[in-house]
Amino acid sequence: MRVVPEKTVARLCLYRRILMQMLPDGRRFVRSHDIAAQARVTPAQVRRDIMALGYKGLPGKGYGVQELLDSMSLFIDAPEREEVALVGVGNLGRALLAYLVGRRPNLILRAAFDNDPAKDGLVINGCPCYDVSRMADVIAAFKIKIAVLAVPAAVAQDVAEKLIAYGVKGILNFVPVRLHLPTPVHVEDIDISSSLERVSFFARAKTSAKKASLSPGETVDSRL
Amino acid sequence: MRVVPEKTVARLCLYRRILMQMLPDGRRFVRSHDIAAQARVTPAQVRRDIMALGYKGLPGKGYGVQELLDSMSLFIDAPEREEVALVGVGNLGRALLAYLVGRRPNLILRAAFDNDPAKDGLVINGCPCYDVSRMADVIAAFKIKIAVLAVPAAVAQDVAEKLIAYGVKGILNFVPVRLHLPTPVHVEDIDISSSLERVSFFARAKTSAKKASLSPGETVDSRL
Repeated sequence: MRVVPEKTVARLCLYRRILMQMLPDGRRFVRSHDIAAQARVTPAQVRRDIMALGYKGLPGKGYGVQELLDSMSLFIDAPEREEVALVGVGNLGRALLAYLVGRRPNLILRAAFDNDPAKDGLVINGCPCYDVSRMADVIAAFKIKIAVLAVPAAVAQDVAEKLIAYGVKGILNFVPVRLHLPTPVHVEDIDISSSLERVSFFARAKTSAKKASLSPGETVDSRL
Repeated sequence: MRVVPEKTVARLCLYRRILMQMLPDGRRFVRSHDIAAQARVTPAQVRRDIMALGYKGLPGKGYGVQELLDSMSLFIDAPEREEVALVGVGNLGRALLAYLVGRRPNLILRAAFDNDPAKDGLVINGCPCYDVSRMADVIAAFKIKIAVLAVPAAVAQDVAEKLIAYGVKGILNFVPVRLHLPTPVHVEDIDISSSLERVSFFARAKTSAKKASLSPGETVDSRL
């Protein structure tokens, strides 16, 4: 028995999405190389990752699509509904509310927080908004362990520390700030603006390769 | 002279966000270790990356915040305005429109596409919506090189291939599908649902370490 590495879990989440796309086709069995081709990993990698689920498949036939999905859900998903809080109901926060509400059956957006008094008491896409001053109470009342962070950069670290003090164990961070948090907390960063900037940069670079001004032998001044 | 690696560009985008957070403090100089602490890399890494910009800083004093930001913008940003298209104006697409419009001065959301006739002709957050049948014309007319993809998974590959045929060079892909595209196209994947699932998984794992059923000596059947 061993703990499953983070990268394996990340790949299993991806395989699940690939399988879910196969369901409407009425397909009953899938082979490791079908998943591998979509996920851009080797078939051997897929087989090793799936072994971590404890589902063995039928040698010569492959994996039952539904059985494999069930094993994945059992492994990845919370056994019971989990409550999620969103902090920061600005443009991005509202957008995330619209997108995330009802998306995963076991992940319930239970509360949104903002410091704008005009938003206190609103229900946005079925999710009630509270003033930030009520974070401690509401998070405790609903036993919320997961938070989505969409606050201004300047307050992100402070809000994250408060969330953890109130009992949150995992943060999906949309703020372009690297949070410094104790290791028992899991953080995933998504920086939409930076990703778009990189797409723009490399789209241009693909047309006319961008050159750097640092030549191979040049030294870097360490007093900076 | 050499091409700048993708990871360097990604870090430079991150450093820029960190610097932008320092601007309101009225700070004039910054040292590599200040940026490094925020970006969670070594100061030597920061100095090497900044050398790629051709901006040298003042040894003993550090980098001028504004000068460094200017060098970064010159390096990262398009010299002229770039036009961006969004494909798929569902929940996520609308959310992205609300978030991205006006966010980066040189990246203009010029057109959105959807196959719902009810959306054809709408202007959402200042961005006009067109029927997908007009993709070729509109992309050519505005010389759009960058696309944000937020369509249903089943059509993502097909839409991406069309975009490239019409001249798009870079795609920010929010669809949980790995696109198979020719190498001259740069793709960045953002999968919000999978990220939230991982946060949920690891938040639980942090509380009670989740175990795998694959023991170290166990073999994986390669006929699957």
